[in-house]
Amino acid sequence: MEHLFDRLRRNAESDICPCHMPGHKRRGWGELPEALYKMDITEIEGFDDLHQPTGILDSLQKEAARLYGAEESFYLVNGSTCGILSAVSTVLPRGGHILMARNCHRSAYHAAYLRELTVTYLYPPFLEEYDVFDAVTPRQVEAALEETSPEAVLIVSPTYEGRIAEVRAIAEIVHRKGIPLIVDEAHGAHLGLAEGFASNSCQAGADLVIHSVHKTLPSLTQTALLHVNGTLVDRQKLRRFLRIYQSSSPSYLLMAGIDNALRYTEERGKESFARFEALYRQMQDVLKNCRYLTFLPGEPERQDVGKLCIYTGKTRFTGKQVYDMLLDEYHIQAEMAAPRYVLAMFTVNDAEETYRRMERALLDIDRKCGEPGEDLLPGREYGSEKPWRSPEAIPLAEAWDRESETVTLQESAGRYAAEFVNLYPPGVPLLAPGERISEDMVQMIFAYGANGLSVQGIISGETESGFTEDMLIRVLKR
Amino acid sequence: MEHLFDRLRRNAESDICPCHMPGHKRRGWGELPEALYKMDITEIEGFDDLHQPTGILDSLQKEAARLYGAEESFYLVNGSTCGILSAVSTVLPRGGHILMARNCHRSAYHAAYLRELTVTYLYPPFLEEYDVFDAVTPRQVEAALEETSPEAVLIVSPTYEGRIAEVRAIAEIVHRKGIPLIVDEAHGAHLGLAEGFASNSCQAGADLVIHSVHKTLPSLTQTALLHVNGTLVDRQKLRRFLRIYQSSSPSYLLMAGIDNALRYTEERGKESFARFEALYRQMQDVLKNCRYLTFLPGEPERQDVGKLCIYTGKTRFTGKQVYDMLLDEYHIQAEMAAPRYVLAMFTVNDAEETYRRMERALLDIDRKCGEPGEDLLPGREYGSEKPWRSPEAIPLAEAWDRESETVTLQESAGRYAAEFVNLYPPGVPLLAPGERISEDMVQMIFAYGANGLSVQGIISGETESGFTEDMLIRVLKR
Repeated sequence: MEHLFDRLRRNAESDICPCHMPGHKRRGWGELPEALYKMDITEIEGFDDLHQPTGILDSLQKEAARLYGAEESFYLVNGSTCGILSAVSTVLPRGGHILMARNCHRSAYHAAYLRELTVTYLYPPFLEEYDVFDAVTPRQVEAALEETSPEAVLIVSPTYEGRIAEVRAIAEIVHRKGIPLIVDEAHGAHLGLAEGFASNSCQAGADLVIHSVHKTLPSLTQTALLHVNGTLVDRQKLRRFLRIYQSSSPSYLLMAGIDNALRYTEERGKESFARFEALYRQMQDVLKNCRYLTFLPGEPERQDVGKLCIYTGKTRFTGKQVYDMLLDEYHIQAEMAAPRYVLAMFTVNDAEETYRRMERALLDIDRKCGEPGEDLLPGREYGSEKPWRSPEAIPLAEAWDRESETVTLQESAGRYAAEFVNLYPPGVPLLAPGERISEDMVQMIFAYGANGLSVQGIISGETESGFTEDMLIRVLKR
Repeated sequence: MEHLFDRLRRNAESDICPCHMPGHKRRGWGELPEALYKMDITEIEGFDDLHQPTGILDSLQKEAARLYGAEESFYLVNGSTCGILSAVSTVLPRGGHILMARNCHRSAYHAAYLRELTVTYLYPPFLEEYDVFDAVTPRQVEAALEETSPEAVLIVSPTYEGRIAEVRAIAEIVHRKGIPLIVDEAHGAHLGLAEGFASNSCQAGADLVIHSVHKTLPSLTQTALLHVNGTLVDRQKLRRFLRIYQSSSPSYLLMAGIDNALRYTEERGKESFARFEALYRQMQDVLKNCRYLTFLPGEPERQDVGKLCIYTGKTRFTGKQVYDMLLDEYHIQAEMAAPRYVLAMFTVNDAEETYRRMERALLDIDRKCGEPGEDLLPGREYGSEKPWRSPEAIPLAEAWDRESETVTLQESAGRYAAEFVNLYPPGVPLLAPGERISEDMVQMIFAYGANGLSVQGIISGETESGFTEDMLIRVLKR
């Protein structure tokens, strides 16, 4: 079958005179390469319509469904964000009730806000040894469904750190209640495509699955897929929300990016994935020689190949310090720094040299590590009560629309958050609007800030009563 | 100041090893040019964060504001669609009341649905001579505001066909009520930038203005701007909704497209716009030699330079026939075909040859036109009662969520629409969910369909009672 890039290239050579949008008319302008404009089109003859596909886009979506083992797939040009918004909006009525993992991406919270949902959280287990949250477990889902009656369940797998949930078991539990399971698999577009990798959530029975194609496959940023399976999802309604949350002028460059990523992932599948896995495993073996740095162990069905989670808690360095050393001394840009770990990402398209460089850098850093220092950041475990577990919360949709004021972080203990607060990346909320701010949470945010981690939702500067040097936070007016 | 493309190019040459997203790792994959991947990044050091900008993106947005005379501007990577959704969601509470032009883009209706708004429509005047709706008038807005008390007003200017509203007068009227004016200026990103063109709506006092950069300037498809002015808009809330309705992984290619379009529009401004206007005016002069085809006259403040609206109502051809002739015989792809006109678009980036080709084609077609035929399509004027004026409507937000069924178009008269029905492009609804379907509307849709125009929302095939050849439509269950 013909692919999008081929057809775009053919169109770029045609003599048809464009008296239509886009305004660049396929001619160069300024500094962007003309080749880019030549292939940037809108819904002209022969190029179908993403919002009502019957031609090439319909075929490509069917190809994607086949590749992932889904019944139906949709190309997304507004990222996984619009996939999450659409999935949640489709299966939950306004004012509905969702059971949702607390480590969801902020778009899940946004969906809950838009649909005015009651939210029951699943708090994922904590892996103390690595300062990382695990994926939620079947047992947790089962227990929650005995206590509450939500209309849908939303989990994340793999998590940002690569923890993979037992989706098949969770899907069975959820389906016993006759409700749909949404899996935010944004970090797992490469799953299920080759041996040595976990299966993906379509294969495991989830009803709605969201993939960021750009995160773990060679596609362009902002591209994603939404897959749907089974009879619990109203597909007409799903199409409605995809139309609502995505541009009515979708970018063919982005769509060609998805097509190109999937096509060659399939064509080169076996050998490139085998090479990828081998290089990653080799690196893991080499890194076993570290004395102080430790790494989340690679178990194919529980920890994603590709994510390297470098735990610094047994060293005298914080995660941020190791992250900075990697960048400044070894010219390696890692994905993110957490208080006690650094996350690095590998994919099917890494050069072998990347692995070698990382190995050399980490062995070198490890030699400098020595014993843990005194001034370690607090981890996220914080006694038995997790600071972000806030049973007294005001519902999100209500709280986010209430009047708020700015106070110092110091003063905020006992008050209710008015905005999201999160470490970025990955953007999983420490606090959501309406949640009560504990003294422990205040101390944790102070420690993050003091150690140079980027905390979104914490501001500086002006309060109602004048300028201050303090960290500030928005809270609900009393 | 440094521009985004320059910085992306510099980054592409750096020796920093990317152990982060996106998954292509800036290396080639499949057929897309490697240059594309090299510049497709995510929020790494030095590239700021669209959702919380403090560096280069903040500077670029300030440049955009300066260029358009706005107080504050936002880059959008999910098209004008997300600009409209965000603007409406910001200024209207859930269940609020909006006064809205009936010729708004479907995203405005989507916003009304999401926010459960009560909608009062402004029905734009109809230019019988050209079968085209005009922009709404100050007098209409004034009259409506005497009868109702909405919380915001939303109009479109220029319209798809290029009709420009008297925004300054409308803004004054709306502000007298202490409420904000949103202008969907998606088709007017080139306005206010040079002499000979109408001013833009920021300059005319609108509170929120949305520009599709790709429609009329040389940017990449799916790029847009949102501008905000004055004190009637809660800017904190506006940022919230922009975060909600846009990907958390915005494409730097798209953002570089906006920057590149604006930068060179400003640098080359005077001469390229003067050339554009001169070529367009020349073409208009040449086309005065047509005997049968007529054209919406070009008045700078009422009809947009760039839109050529070719009226076929005095010929023996329908709009669709002339559209097809342009494509098949002259290799000119026009923007759209309406029953009695064809719309073509010109921008600052057209080759001179494009104008010449259009002139030759239309003079040639005009010679074949002869007198009007018998089988002309119905226009949209349809007696004194516009078929889409439906005072008995069920509220949109309620209707779109109600149970529906499929019936033949024939049977649908007197029933209530369950989905949007519109000619595409431009996607302005003939029917919105909850509107009563008149006998006139049924006849009009039949005529459109029979003449090969693309009517979205009209389906074919399966009903609850079996397969049929008829045109089908979704209506609310009784």
